[in-house]
Amino acid sequence: MKNRKKRAVVLLSGGLDSATTLYWAKSKGYKIYALIFSYGQKHGKEVKKAVKIAEKAKVPFTILKIRIPWGSSSLIDKNAEIPQTGTARLPAGQAITQKRSNPVPSTYVPGRNTIFISFALSFCEAEKLSSVFIGANAVDYSGYPDCRPGYIAAFDRLLKEASLGKIKLKAPLLSLSKKEIVLLAFRLKVPVGLTWSCYKGGRYPCGKCDSCLLRAKGFREAGIKDPTKN
Amino acid sequence: MKNRKKRAVVLLSGGLDSATTLYWAKSKGYKIYALIFSYGQKHGKEVKKAVKIAEKAKVPFTILKIRIPWGSSSLIDKNAEIPQTGTARLPAGQAITQKRSNPVPSTYVPGRNTIFISFALSFCEAEKLSSVFIGANAVDYSGYPDCRPGYIAAFDRLLKEASLGKIKLKAPLLSLSKKEIVLLAFRLKVPVGLTWSCYKGGRYPCGKCDSCLLRAKGFREAGIKDPTKN
Repeated sequence: MKNRKKRAVVLLSGGLDSATTLYWAKSKGYKIYALIFSYGQKHGKEVKKAVKIAEKAKVPFTILKIRIPWGSSSLIDKNAEIPQTGTARLPAGQAITQKRSNPVPSTYVPGRNTIFISFALSFCEAEKLSSVFIGANAVDYSGYPDCRPGYIAAFDRLLKEASLGKIKLKAPLLSLSKKEIVLLAFRLKVPVGLTWSCYKGGRYPCGKCDSCLLRAKGFREAGIKDPTKN
Repeated sequence: MKNRKKRAVVLLSGGLDSATTLYWAKSKGYKIYALIFSYGQKHGKEVKKAVKIAEKAKVPFTILKIRIPWGSSSLIDKNAEIPQTGTARLPAGQAITQKRSNPVPSTYVPGRNTIFISFALSFCEAEKLSSVFIGANAVDYSGYPDCRPGYIAAFDRLLKEASLGKIKLKAPLLSLSKKEIVLLAFRLKVPVGLTWSCYKGGRYPCGKCDSCLLRAKGFREAGIKDPTKN
């Protein structure tokens, strides 16, 4: 009988947060499996980076292709422009207080995290794992509804009901600032230079999208130079 | 501005329960969109029947192909036998009282309903619909964890957190017996002869799997002859 308690799946996007989450879970003694989603992103860079991170961390991974055919997000709709200003310009902590009726950036993919966690639940049930780790963060974030603490807590309750094995949802970075995530990543020896946060798939990060701005803010506040070339 | 309140998606499997749910929602004045999943079932019969039911009901539908690569269910694993005895032989109402640690039939697809509802949430968000309807039933059912009232309630709470539009999850058949579902189906003029409940994809229902047995019990108790040929 395998030790179900210490086996977990990590949703790995190739970004700084999910890579740090993977290394955090490893540091806590979990045997990790990475799930990487190819969901029709405009570029395949994220997926390639995720694979490199999984290989570097020596964890088995599965790339899961899914299609969200009604995608109305600028991340997957090839006709939509990725915005270059947004909540990333807010001071740390401000985004979390926004009301649900406030505008959400066009980069929001409806239901994306819910779909990802659902597949992770299925994987945990089939492979008898105990936990799903997600790099969701609700401090320096873009205001997506599926990154908030209430969402994570509700999904954790659902997993208990949905599964035979009382699977848990863990979001260890949920209440950290981007600065704290950067510091944690270096402490855990995350291969930060392999991580990719930019919404665009250029040779180098664009430095202008929400995700690049949030990342830059974190490194600036941590007083560390970002090893990902820019 | 479209009336978001009266627009809903129905998860349509081609079985009696989901078809009845569709007609129930229609009878309540909802404008319906059907989501049909092709998820690697051993046979395509369910999907074909679901399409016929959507066409008969004159509701637009989308067939979504998804792959659950770690499938450990006899419904999708081509090497596994579909059992011919199971909870369907229990008297009505008994299955609901079973403890979570009790065996679940091999036909259970881990996380299936969670994945389906997640895609439905995404669809509702993208298309500005108000509700997800599912034909889950927890009386005459096979004991799957993702059909129980606690699961439906937890997912309803999650949808509120996950979405911008406070989407609701509705399972109108949840506490009906199979007999009551059969009677409701005929009252709502569901094209019952088009529905397919059998886990196998033969020319006619096998009459022996859990799903066939539950269906037969419902018709027997309702005193109605099943129009699906057997």
